[in-house]
Amino acid sequence: MTGDAHGAQRVAWTAPWGRAREWFHRKLAELPLDLVTDAAGNQWATLRGMSERTVLIGGHLDSVPDGGWLDGCLGVLAGLEVLRRLASAGAPPVTVRLVDWADEEGARFGHSVFGSTATFGSLDLASLQELTDRDGICLADAVAGYGIDLARVAEASRHAAHVAAYVELHIEQGPVLESLDIPLGVVTGTVGVERHVIHFSGQAAHAGATPMERRRDALGAAATLALAVREIARRHGGVGTVGRIVASPNTPTVIVGQCDVWVDLRHENEIRLASMLVETQEAATAIAERERVDLKSRLLWQIPPASFDPQLIELCEEAVQETCGDVHRLPSGAIHDATQVANSGVPAVMMFAQSLGGISHSKEEDTRTEHLLLAVRAFDRLVSKTTRWAAGW
Amino acid sequence: MTGDAHGAQRVAWTAPWGRAREWFHRKLAELPLDLVTDAAGNQWATLRGMSERTVLIGGHLDSVPDGGWLDGCLGVLAGLEVLRRLASAGAPPVTVRLVDWADEEGARFGHSVFGSTATFGSLDLASLQELTDRDGICLADAVAGYGIDLARVAEASRHAAHVAAYVELHIEQGPVLESLDIPLGVVTGTVGVERHVIHFSGQAAHAGATPMERRRDALGAAATLALAVREIARRHGGVGTVGRIVASPNTPTVIVGQCDVWVDLRHENEIRLASMLVETQEAATAIAERERVDLKSRLLWQIPPASFDPQLIELCEEAVQETCGDVHRLPSGAIHDATQVANSGVPAVMMFAQSLGGISHSKEEDTRTEHLLLAVRAFDRLVSKTTRWAAGW
Repeated sequence: MTGDAHGAQRVAWTAPWGRAREWFHRKLAELPLDLVTDAAGNQWATLRGMSERTVLIGGHLDSVPDGGWLDGCLGVLAGLEVLRRLASAGAPPVTVRLVDWADEEGARFGHSVFGSTATFGSLDLASLQELTDRDGICLADAVAGYGIDLARVAEASRHAAHVAAYVELHIEQGPVLESLDIPLGVVTGTVGVERHVIHFSGQAAHAGATPMERRRDALGAAATLALAVREIARRHGGVGTVGRIVASPNTPTVIVGQCDVWVDLRHENEIRLASMLVETQEAATAIAERERVDLKSRLLWQIPPASFDPQLIELCEEAVQETCGDVHRLPSGAIHDATQVANSGVPAVMMFAQSLGGISHSKEEDTRTEHLLLAVRAFDRLVSKTTRWAAGW
Repeated sequence: MTGDAHGAQRVAWTAPWGRAREWFHRKLAELPLDLVTDAAGNQWATLRGMSERTVLIGGHLDSVPDGGWLDGCLGVLAGLEVLRRLASAGAPPVTVRLVDWADEEGARFGHSVFGSTATFGSLDLASLQELTDRDGICLADAVAGYGIDLARVAEASRHAAHVAAYVELHIEQGPVLESLDIPLGVVTGTVGVERHVIHFSGQAAHAGATPMERRRDALGAAATLALAVREIARRHGGVGTVGRIVASPNTPTVIVGQCDVWVDLRHENEIRLASMLVETQEAATAIAERERVDLKSRLLWQIPPASFDPQLIELCEEAVQETCGDVHRLPSGAIHDATQVANSGVPAVMMFAQSLGGISHSKEEDTRTEHLLLAVRAFDRLVSKTTRWAAGW
């Protein structure tokens, strides 16, 4: 059991995740694959081909708490079936590897795409050492339970060698393909993200005794900014979200003195994203002045947009078209391990399977069975095309 | 000790409050007064006069958590000094009583003006029996520790007999008198309050993968309503506050699916207050439709505006003028025990002392020493004038 009535509980660096990985390891061990777990906890399965050049298939078994069954898992399990088919057909033209990335979600310690960053990017050891979970357990101690020495995670990067192409199948986690009634999509890249927390500081005061014109209402400022963020996102064709708001003292009869809002801005175009951030900061400054509150802002996380490889995008489009006719290209609004791979310069592409209701990170997450079958078939085609492409055939 | 580094901790039905009351009881016991605690926990001190007709002086020793030193206490301690002066001058023309109301703040169980409602209004026993504090302790058990049987609190109402006038000195808890540079104010009445919680229900979804036009963003609806409430209040010359907001799941990367806002509307004019409520409800409905979210609202508390007695207002104005020259009439945006007394039909009035910075319900709450002296002198004059008025002299 790696889930319960509330959904999947395969949170990285917890026992249910460990059990899921053991189960997956047993599945891999049935095939003629070299199995190894690297210094960052990524699980690698290698099918040696006629060349060291490598096509890498990625996915992740870890989930958010109360998560869905497909997010991440679809990729590794489809990868397993592709390897099974390839292994039965003799040595492929290039080496094909499957990686189950460690801690894509960052659900427990807040650091997303941990394993792929160790391999294709670079982890900031100093900030990793500060990460703790809700119970105050630090990341270093949690990963040590899985045989990982935080000081040595960079050694995972040796697995980036020889990788000529990266392919990943994932559910869309959004409503676009369903709204177009198309089973599978070709992902052109992942959006860039600017995530900042904006702190407004006014004056807590009696809600009855303080005239409107004398208030320094931090919630009024926060509400105005939340609406401005939406307008800015719409104007630029990106997305902008205030998903978290914390007011203080948060008492019905007291004007809000302090209010924090978490702003998450995303765009596939780097210049547009930068403009969205500048306009958000200008809006916050103007609002703070108008509401006579103080303003502070702090960067939480940022990642530039990643563009997938034009040739792999073409191959992915062919694979989808040959499998189910209809095809649609779309950017991913979510970050994936493929983002880190693509940003390292390795050609990468993702294929999306339609999500029912666009719902993810929830036990309601689902995809039609016929779409899952199409996804695995199309992904298998994509891997075959990519191995031929990587071999230069 | 009834406070700490964070402020006053005289929360009703807690040990520090009990200690404050014992201290006050000892002070009263030094004077020739009849002392009794009633069925609702109110502490009464009676100076028998030449008639049963009674002038009642009110206040409260209980505070909010981390409260100020003057809120409520100024009234009872000024009352003590007035009784001391009266007792030394022989029997007054009418009986003068001082009441230390039990649980004005409602800080622990959420029910404000408990003791004065038992005496001059009526408590709803069924809803009282449902009240619990943050630790799940029910009100009935907490008051039992102070010898009170919740089923018998209505017996406190016998103390309302013979009361011909009610006077209360309190700090303003707002910035108006300070902004006018006037030490003392005459309160014309207390505003009416409509307190409702508005629940918006949209759809939690991925902040990256969900296009702006497909969102059902409960925080967007809540933010729009919070700003509308301010506009409605300004248009009617009242006050309107969203002091509490709770979003769910309240995660930076997830669109808010559920959002509750607590709306507190106040106006001294009943018709204006009703209009403010209707406009708020209309705004919430229109916002919910525009944002494609569901809407529910629930009444938390309401109280009609209370008008103080025109003749007592005149007497209060004389007392203030004779003491310090300048005078200003203002409504109280806060509810007081005087609200319950006035709404029962008994003539009542309040006097306000200036609050520094308009700050209350905080350890920063303060009033200049010279203003406190003026307040006690003016209040003493008001009691003298009121006893003569009540005696028909």
